[in-house]
Amino acid sequence: MELGASIVEEEVVRFKVWAPLKKSVSVLFPSRRTGEKLVLQQDRWGYFEGSEESVSGAERYLYLLDGERALPDPASRFQPDGVHGPSLVVDPDSFLWEDDAWIGITLENFIIYEIHVGAFTEGGTFDAVIGRLGYLRDLGVTAIELMPVAQFSGTRNWGYDGVYPFAPQASYGGPDGLKRLINACHSRGVAVVLDVVYNHLGPEGNYLASFAPYFTDRYKTPWGDAINFDGPYSDEVRRYFIDNALYWLSEFHVDALRLDAIQGIYDCGARHFLKELAEAVHSLGRALGRNVYVMAESDLNDVRVIDPPEAGGYGLDAQWNDDFHHALHALVTGETTAYYGDFGKLRHVSKALSQGFVYTGEYSTYRKRRHGGPSKGRPSRQFIVFSQNHDQVGNRMARPSRTQSLEQLKLAAGVVLLSPYIPLLFMGEEYGEEAPFNYFVSFSDEALVKEVRKGRAAELALFGRAENAPDPGAEATFLDSKIGVRGHRSAWQNRLYHFYRALIDMRREFSDPNGPADEHMKIRKFEGQGALLVKRRSSRGSLSCLYNFGARRVSVRLTLPEGRWVRVLDSSSKEWGGPGELSQDTIEWTGKEVKITLTAFGLVLYRGDRP
Amino acid sequence: MELGASIVEEEVVRFKVWAPLKKSVSVLFPSRRTGEKLVLQQDRWGYFEGSEESVSGAERYLYLLDGERALPDPASRFQPDGVHGPSLVVDPDSFLWEDDAWIGITLENFIIYEIHVGAFTEGGTFDAVIGRLGYLRDLGVTAIELMPVAQFSGTRNWGYDGVYPFAPQASYGGPDGLKRLINACHSRGVAVVLDVVYNHLGPEGNYLASFAPYFTDRYKTPWGDAINFDGPYSDEVRRYFIDNALYWLSEFHVDALRLDAIQGIYDCGARHFLKELAEAVHSLGRALGRNVYVMAESDLNDVRVIDPPEAGGYGLDAQWNDDFHHALHALVTGETTAYYGDFGKLRHVSKALSQGFVYTGEYSTYRKRRHGGPSKGRPSRQFIVFSQNHDQVGNRMARPSRTQSLEQLKLAAGVVLLSPYIPLLFMGEEYGEEAPFNYFVSFSDEALVKEVRKGRAAELALFGRAENAPDPGAEATFLDSKIGVRGHRSAWQNRLYHFYRALIDMRREFSDPNGPADEHMKIRKFEGQGALLVKRRSSRGSLSCLYNFGARRVSVRLTLPEGRWVRVLDSSSKEWGGPGELSQDTIEWTGKEVKITLTAFGLVLYRGDRP
Repeated sequence: MELGASIVEEEVVRFKVWAPLKKSVSVLFPSRRTGEKLVLQQDRWGYFEGSEESVSGAERYLYLLDGERALPDPASRFQPDGVHGPSLVVDPDSFLWEDDAWIGITLENFIIYEIHVGAFTEGGTFDAVIGRLGYLRDLGVTAIELMPVAQFSGTRNWGYDGVYPFAPQASYGGPDGLKRLINACHSRGVAVVLDVVYNHLGPEGNYLASFAPYFTDRYKTPWGDAINFDGPYSDEVRRYFIDNALYWLSEFHVDALRLDAIQGIYDCGARHFLKELAEAVHSLGRALGRNVYVMAESDLNDVRVIDPPEAGGYGLDAQWNDDFHHALHALVTGETTAYYGDFGKLRHVSKALSQGFVYTGEYSTYRKRRHGGPSKGRPSRQFIVFSQNHDQVGNRMARPSRTQSLEQLKLAAGVVLLSPYIPLLFMGEEYGEEAPFNYFVSFSDEALVKEVRKGRAAELALFGRAENAPDPGAEATFLDSKIGVRGHRSAWQNRLYHFYRALIDMRREFSDPNGPADEHMKIRKFEGQGALLVKRRSSRGSLSCLYNFGARRVSVRLTLPEGRWVRVLDSSSKEWGGPGELSQDTIEWTGKEVKITLTAFGLVLYRGDRP
Repeated sequence: MELGASIVEEEVVRFKVWAPLKKSVSVLFPSRRTGEKLVLQQDRWGYFEGSEESVSGAERYLYLLDGERALPDPASRFQPDGVHGPSLVVDPDSFLWEDDAWIGITLENFIIYEIHVGAFTEGGTFDAVIGRLGYLRDLGVTAIELMPVAQFSGTRNWGYDGVYPFAPQASYGGPDGLKRLINACHSRGVAVVLDVVYNHLGPEGNYLASFAPYFTDRYKTPWGDAINFDGPYSDEVRRYFIDNALYWLSEFHVDALRLDAIQGIYDCGARHFLKELAEAVHSLGRALGRNVYVMAESDLNDVRVIDPPEAGGYGLDAQWNDDFHHALHALVTGETTAYYGDFGKLRHVSKALSQGFVYTGEYSTYRKRRHGGPSKGRPSRQFIVFSQNHDQVGNRMARPSRTQSLEQLKLAAGVVLLSPYIPLLFMGEEYGEEAPFNYFVSFSDEALVKEVRKGRAAELALFGRAENAPDPGAEATFLDSKIGVRGHRSAWQNRLYHFYRALIDMRREFSDPNGPADEHMKIRKFEGQGALLVKRRSSRGSLSCLYNFGARRVSVRLTLPEGRWVRVLDSSSKEWGGPGELSQDTIEWTGKEVKITLTAFGLVLYRGDRP
């Protein structure tokens, strides 16, 4: 990376910072008693640059702007003393990587496990996550996704208030801690997805605007000023964020980036920022000989995001499919608050499974307008689906494990994990973790905390959950969200965990990495029964999945394709804590209809012997 | 059109207005003494509708919203008493069209003449324009383009302050006047392009926001609130503007729409408004059996606007190419103020001629960022070019005829009219009209006029022309802008006029309507001489155009393709008011280089006898 402090040779550090509207920029070294400073020279694009000898690999520095204000580096690699303190020079080559042989995993093999570093373990650090990798390997996931780790104010935050996009959170263990974690992941064959926020910066410690026109008031985001991706000076703003993406791939060996809420990335220019970003990432991936991906959270329901450039798209590799979640959650729970009011029918889940988006141009009552465009035909590996994630769990103030039955939890897990899409689990869902995932912050600015309280209450009010909401600023709110620290698992939790394992095993065994699964998928709706039959075929065999989304037992009559069908999973089995299965063990093809009975919220899987 | 007042059968009028957040809407008839009103019924989409019997074909009406405020119809077809007065019921079928046989002209045959209805004639009405159609036919243009005619406040306005998108300006002659004009155009084989403004509404008499969420504060435009094309309730806003487009085509027989500044149309949804608009227009055109087009003014330099939908584009038919203008103007005049600073080199004109946009991703000093994307490969009929238009003439406070020599004017005209693109002339440029095209308004709100004065001064300051700017609010400012009212033309003006005619004849004779001209165009730059050679081939022969952009005589050496080359035009000829030609009459192909001499700003055309 060219920006920030770079060790160009032993004990020589080059500083480079963009400040096009400043007259002078110097580097201050607060730990030196002499008060000496390094005066930087400006180039025609507004970058100030200069080199200093005799800088140790871990020296603190600040930039002095126009002789007036000393601020940390916008491209700081480490903020050991927090968002207001000086930046630290980091030697990117000092870490000894052991993943030379790692080339990543291919997109269709991602099974993602989303982690909040602070809440995932008692320790709440990158290193503490390493201790759980064995557990995750056993579970069968192939990738962890870290909620944003860019330095934020304080020690408790979901991560979306980061203000130093290049500096891994000090309280999590800083850059070396993150490298140790990724190194350990790769040594266990686990890929790492990093959540990055390119639509806004957090409210406290955000000094970027003092350096340059990083922000614009031409567009609004719910989180503050939009980032200037298309106005005057935007070339260098774009470069800053694209460099950030490349930095995580090259200096941290990250395998994929998950871009937060790209509907907040406004670019009306002829070369969309996301397209340039994807091109840069893919080009670096080719140079590094590794599989690297850009995944996006998007509520646009627009395949332009994932369409290839030749079809006018941005060329991102995959995107979250919130519609899938909403359709599944509303159908399984019957919930109708807020955006769930747009969902709740069998056809919504059926469409999500077969086409990707549910809203492909239809009128959305919640949005008060037609929403989305067609997504049919995109490969299934381009959609990331889930029945839980940090937002959905966070917004409910309670885990699904506290509000849904074991049968409902198993059904939702099955629909996600047996879908042709890339599944994502939220930490703890695999064993029915009961700790909530609260919203927490630890700004030092009390006025800000007050504002967050207010904003949070408004968000929860959408779901009728504003009362008794925990205080986002209280430490207990964070501590209550830690998982796996409440003693042993109960019997039903163990059963759920083993059910998840079985589903993941089934997915891994059945998946056909040679082709998009949806090409060979057929769906049949049993409207009267509230049940779905999903037939998938791959070179490894055929799978017929029957889902009952209702709270009562139903029987469906269907004709299976030729062959012998063996039941390989029934969620109603006592083994999984169910009431006992009602479906047949095996079905010999006779050309006639068979009747299969499903218990409430039951899921039954048959495997055929012919591909 | 379903919106507004529609005569559904004799003396029965249906009223339909969208007001989704209102509890009640009634229709008032101010001319009736009884004070009776018609109470409308709301449907689920927020439309209020109802029918009234015994309404004469020309009755005035207002909508009473929630019993509180009586306002004119947002879809009013006619505002006889101005923007604050009642709307008038108009019978669209009462006009007797005589253009049954008219099917329009094809895109590549457009030669557009831009007109401001108020300033084009002494009368300043639609009917007065009719009296000039013979003149325009003789000139050779194939289409007129009317600056916006939607009802604005007062009687003097460029048109971009319109507030009733469906109501032709009353002081121009209202709907019947416009129909008479278009009918007359078609009877003379002239197509009509209408400038429509879908990026904002004017400041005075803009009551739309009182009816419904037509506007949004999510985006900013330089002209006020952006229109709500993608937020809650946007479906019906989109429908309103799409209906407007279709209305001009069906009720007024307009041949093409010119969309004002589409960079101010913000739509981040999955189905861009412009794409839907183009689809709707083309579909209506097919149904009507007429050639209809959507052209856009765009400063995005993004071919997404004109790319076909299958390539991810919006599918508009053509767009203005401002780069062409700036490149040509800066090179011919040497001007470097404001955006001209990005242009001024021979290579800019050469690129504009061969590729469309000049800025296709390069850094623009004026914009302080890289600008645009590649446009190579788009058919040449998709770009509309000009050396003058209302904006460019208006912003200079003087016509090019006052600041440039006759030789410069002829050169610019030649580059535009002999280009492979669709040429557009601004009224009067063909004879070197000397009246300025001032900026004028006639708002009744004096505070508004003050604001306009300020804004206008800022705009002119960009070009160092703020001093002595005429008062936009004064009637004289408008009257001074009227053309063709200053007595007879001088000799040089007549020569220029005949030169334009000759160029247009040449263009019409040479153009190959069977193929995009650019496929067969070759350009050679003579950097040292500041000259360009543009070779074009069509089934009708070959044309070699030599342009000297410098203020001194130059000679170029070149090899022409095999054949006999006849000089068909030399701008230096005394016939055109030039100093006398220096080029050869004919060139017999010998395989050797020939030397051709061009006078200052000279333009010479040779025609080859082989296609």
